[in-house]
Amino acid sequence: MNFIRNILNSRSERNGNFFIQIKNIIGHKPNTISYYEKAFTHRSMNIRDAQGIPFNYERLEFVGDAMLSAVIASHLFNEAPQGDEGYLTKMRSKIVSREHLNELGKDLNLIDLVETKIPKVNFGNNIHGNLFEALVGAIYLDKGYKSCQRFIFDTVIIPHVDIEQLEGKVISYKSLLIEWCQKEKKTFDYQVYDDTGNDELRHFSVKLSINNKIIAKARATSKKKAEEKASKRAFFVFQNKISRAF
Amino acid sequence: MNFIRNILNSRSERNGNFFIQIKNIIGHKPNTISYYEKAFTHRSMNIRDAQGIPFNYERLEFVGDAMLSAVIASHLFNEAPQGDEGYLTKMRSKIVSREHLNELGKDLNLIDLVETKIPKVNFGNNIHGNLFEALVGAIYLDKGYKSCQRFIFDTVIIPHVDIEQLEGKVISYKSLLIEWCQKEKKTFDYQVYDDTGNDELRHFSVKLSINNKIIAKARATSKKKAEEKASKRAFFVFQNKISRAF
Repeated sequence: MNFIRNILNSRSERNGNFFIQIKNIIGHKPNTISYYEKAFTHRSMNIRDAQGIPFNYERLEFVGDAMLSAVIASHLFNEAPQGDEGYLTKMRSKIVSREHLNELGKDLNLIDLVETKIPKVNFGNNIHGNLFEALVGAIYLDKGYKSCQRFIFDTVIIPHVDIEQLEGKVISYKSLLIEWCQKEKKTFDYQVYDDTGNDELRHFSVKLSINNKIIAKARATSKKKAEEKASKRAFFVFQNKISRAF
Repeated sequence: MNFIRNILNSRSERNGNFFIQIKNIIGHKPNTISYYEKAFTHRSMNIRDAQGIPFNYERLEFVGDAMLSAVIASHLFNEAPQGDEGYLTKMRSKIVSREHLNELGKDLNLIDLVETKIPKVNFGNNIHGNLFEALVGAIYLDKGYKSCQRFIFDTVIIPHVDIEQLEGKVISYKSLLIEWCQKEKKTFDYQVYDDTGNDELRHFSVKLSINNKIIAKARATSKKKAEEKASKRAFFVFQNKISRAF
């Protein structure tokens, strides 16, 4: 138990390693670091707070899930004015699907931050999405709705939510991007390399450059997926220009 | 269509009847009245806005439902620190149950404000809850999260959410209140009268006085329910005093 306290104490230090990692992920200094400590403590640590309440991320997931639903609901309300209630509900389910949340948690490497007594390789895939939800919950409780909304915009909505693609209208961002580059006489380059690291599954990273400048990076379990992901991100960087071009 | 425009135009007037009714319900002046016009327009009016988008409350329900879930999630997170995710989910479902939302909408008489071509007596019971959700959505879009949260606190959480009762620990607020009055040597009086009005179902209203001062009013389909509802409201008025007494 002392050992556990020491881990937590070392995480609580302002300007300590954990504090800076959280700051980098959320883009702002945390106010109350203990919310994030909780968001990255697995139940296997078996910690309780001073009131005897279990100290782990599970209840924060509940808050994060609710905030994701609320922020995305109001976004869809504005962005899909033609869609009825059924359409809005369907679109939201796609965005907050378990698979998508897992991908978001993985992209942010949240698993690196977890304190656990279970070896991390033994976790299933859902740990990534659960940590992402818990992080969203922690941001809401620590910094309020507006900051939480901004985080969801930056990590979920801007890079990942595209109503056209959710509706199946855009099949491939890669082909859309290449078409645009050719039209605008820009050079493009997809640099793909094996980046399996400690993962059990084989992973690939890709750097997409346009006119010799790196525009987007992505990582996925296949070359094709990584290229598509990077293209999608680049697409959003250039969104206004591209939509004017077509 | 001109007829409809006239109705809507008359509703848009600042300091008009509709504006004041909304102000009384939400406790603040609306900024953009059109959100509330939308929240109280039934699809049978068959109105479209300048962009050709259907102008009725259905899409606002989606936003309101999401906001209710989010606000209540964070409230339960704080108020039920011992409850795990499953418990929090179950408690929230009870609070935002269709039946409860219908009751909330009915209490605020929201149906009086609806523009519809279908006779109001033909609506089912769910219209009340749907209008309540749409109103919550309109408040969020008009005035932001904090105001929406405050409205949900004032109308849902403070008068209606009691974790003890949701858990089935408190069976009757009436007996709790009577016990407290007797202990504190206060007089109490439940004045019940038939108040069916235009309802198809028989309704009862009750005024609960303590020491000859009216403390709470309520209306329900049976005397017993109306008394219990008024007792619950009174209980919350005196909450601190009562919990200290027991």
